[in-house]
Amino acid sequence: MLRIITQWSEATSELRRICDRTHDDQVVHKEATVREVLQAVKRQGDRALLAYTLEFDQQELAPEELKVSPLELEAAYSQVSGELIDAIRLARKQIEAFHRQRVPKSWVHFGDDDVVLGKRYTPVDRAGLYVPGGKASYPSTVLMNAVPAIVAQVPKIVMVTPPGKDKAINPAVLVAAQEAGVTDIYRVGGAQAVGALAYGTETIPKVDVITGPGNIYVTLAKKLVYGTVGIDSLAGPSEVLIIADHTANPTHVAADMLAQAEHDAMAASILITTDAILARKVVDEVEQQLVDHPRRTLTEKAIAHYGLIIVVETLEAAAELSNEFAPEHLELEVADPWELMQNIRHAGAIFLGDSTPEAVGDYLAGPNHTLPTSGSARYASPLGVETFLKHSSVIQYSPIALQKVASAVDILATAEGLHSHANSIRVRKDSLLNPEP
Amino acid sequence: MLRIITQWSEATSELRRICDRTHDDQVVHKEATVREVLQAVKRQGDRALLAYTLEFDQQELAPEELKVSPLELEAAYSQVSGELIDAIRLARKQIEAFHRQRVPKSWVHFGDDDVVLGKRYTPVDRAGLYVPGGKASYPSTVLMNAVPAIVAQVPKIVMVTPPGKDKAINPAVLVAAQEAGVTDIYRVGGAQAVGALAYGTETIPKVDVITGPGNIYVTLAKKLVYGTVGIDSLAGPSEVLIIADHTANPTHVAADMLAQAEHDAMAASILITTDAILARKVVDEVEQQLVDHPRRTLTEKAIAHYGLIIVVETLEAAAELSNEFAPEHLELEVADPWELMQNIRHAGAIFLGDSTPEAVGDYLAGPNHTLPTSGSARYASPLGVETFLKHSSVIQYSPIALQKVASAVDILATAEGLHSHANSIRVRKDSLLNPEP
Repeated sequence: MLRIITQWSEATSELRRICDRTHDDQVVHKEATVREVLQAVKRQGDRALLAYTLEFDQQELAPEELKVSPLELEAAYSQVSGELIDAIRLARKQIEAFHRQRVPKSWVHFGDDDVVLGKRYTPVDRAGLYVPGGKASYPSTVLMNAVPAIVAQVPKIVMVTPPGKDKAINPAVLVAAQEAGVTDIYRVGGAQAVGALAYGTETIPKVDVITGPGNIYVTLAKKLVYGTVGIDSLAGPSEVLIIADHTANPTHVAADMLAQAEHDAMAASILITTDAILARKVVDEVEQQLVDHPRRTLTEKAIAHYGLIIVVETLEAAAELSNEFAPEHLELEVADPWELMQNIRHAGAIFLGDSTPEAVGDYLAGPNHTLPTSGSARYASPLGVETFLKHSSVIQYSPIALQKVASAVDILATAEGLHSHANSIRVRKDSLLNPEP
Repeated sequence: MLRIITQWSEATSELRRICDRTHDDQVVHKEATVREVLQAVKRQGDRALLAYTLEFDQQELAPEELKVSPLELEAAYSQVSGELIDAIRLARKQIEAFHRQRVPKSWVHFGDDDVVLGKRYTPVDRAGLYVPGGKASYPSTVLMNAVPAIVAQVPKIVMVTPPGKDKAINPAVLVAAQEAGVTDIYRVGGAQAVGALAYGTETIPKVDVITGPGNIYVTLAKKLVYGTVGIDSLAGPSEVLIIADHTANPTHVAADMLAQAEHDAMAASILITTDAILARKVVDEVEQQLVDHPRRTLTEKAIAHYGLIIVVETLEAAAELSNEFAPEHLELEVADPWELMQNIRHAGAIFLGDSTPEAVGDYLAGPNHTLPTSGSARYASPLGVETFLKHSSVIQYSPIALQKVASAVDILATAEGLHSHANSIRVRKDSLLNPEP
């Protein structure tokens, strides 16, 4: 059921099909619904949040129940195992250590004539983190979003996540949030939660940037509010592309492909290999590992629709196909992954060698697991501290420096027909020539 | 006609009104038009481009006329003055020097147990630069967009700009493009040009990121194609906020306010000052400098609707109002601008002191003039080399490092119900315990 392709043209067209798997025409219709939800939240605030939570999540909340209480936060610790708390703490520590590397710092450069130029980095005032509900309610999502915001020193971080049965929030999510340092948590999800973060309500503060994954409604809402607030990215379904040579272990490759496929039926798992024997072994291994899989139906569906093995002649060809696809996750299961990486131009995260399964990066290696999907690694980067920082250009000219460039500015402004631009230099030249006492 | 406000509550509500000046409900209707244009370009390619160019720009082009010819590129140099060429060269040199500072570089960090983590920066494959037509067809726009892409070492840069009368492109724009190093220039503008860059046509290559300012149709098109390609930002009308104390020169302040207002009728010019006498002098100066202004009607309109002077008690209060507004351009015309800058949290570019009029930054100080507008400086940064770069996370674990975290990954994956994630670690633990020969 996992297909093996050997023809280049078929390979490129299949990769194109898989990369475009979310660009369906249904989106326009869903967008109308999302627009309506956002407008309602903008106009009615909390009232709309409660109504949509009842409609979409079947949970009837009072306004004061929107915010997760200190009692509930504390109780979460007794609802998870000690070893899970320890694992969350290890993950937080390693994620923080990575994100503290090379944080952009403000700088100034002193030029001739006392010119000072620079960049001044500052965090956003408020960040909003979206954490999905249901089966995709993951403590790792919380850490990967919250830790970079904490490292960026964002003064106020709020989290939203939809309530489950009995209004409950996944306790592991609540523990992860607290371990990261986030305690303002609101029990609301979907497009309405994005609206609340973008516009603010009586209970939920308006934020400056919204991050975190979600379903198609959440993603559309993020796209619509982009411009009112910043967003991290438009997340699509997850994907892994593995480049493997004859040194790769088929059991490991199959396990990594399934680790992607089990996320949801739209997830993509692609193997590109120079070894036809490995290809066949991986097909068998995938079948075998699926037998007892607790999410067998969903995982099989993903593998059937968006699973693929491509056999190529050379690793260079494999890299070329990978660059076309621009995968979210790229595993290099080859004899010399550092050598092969030189040929890679676009990927969210690159996992080198057999001892680096994607799962180690998903949880605790340190780099962020929120990565560009659906080919957006062609232009986008992983979520990071930079998502919560922005900078201002800083410019100081001296009178003498201004005098030296005055005529050039005048010529350019005049060529552009911008009279007052030119004049703003001229009036200063005049006062340089005739300084007031 | 330039109003002076002294009440705090009126000040904040007026600043809010000015900041939100583009959020009108007409946008939804225009969006439908733009969506249609984009779909037509996606489906019909060049044919749609030519049809829309005839409809919107009244220019009838043959397909082979879409690309600006080498002859036309060369001829541009004889159509502009030598001093303008020199000024463009000075600007290019200074913009390049600034943008070469602190370009992000790839790095790896070596941790315990042979763990290697890092970030690998690569440029996008192809960048598309939008340059407006008509009165807003500026050589400075070309430099500010093209130079960062060149510094980022983008292999292919294409420029689009709408044809004017007789299919002509502003020769200063063509000179600036060539001086920056861009020679793939296409004679097409509007939403259709954005569509061409996002989807590709027979003539125009699909790009990975689209930058550059434009009218509301161009901006809406950029928002709609975002996700298919990257974009720099959603540019709104321009704005300046000046904080001045009693040391400021009213003639200079007035000139700088008008330099913003002359851009278009939606441009905003705001002065916040601790000096009521200065406020009145600036009102008079603005009136006086408007008398002979070649764009008087438009500039007056901008000043009347979106011009404002606020008198406050302290510079701290001025900074607080400025942070609420998050201006694109911020001038600090005060005795100690470096001191005051410590209170500034959000601004696209900060101009310090009387010898640093915004115009010097608009043209040639070096920092980019493409800056976040409409309050988006709360979360966004100036255009820069980073706009054309992205990075991949790099992760390499060793067998021993993997073994040490194996149980933590297993616990986290199991808590998240992700069986194959856990399994991808387990199968490797097994082979560590029982290495194959």
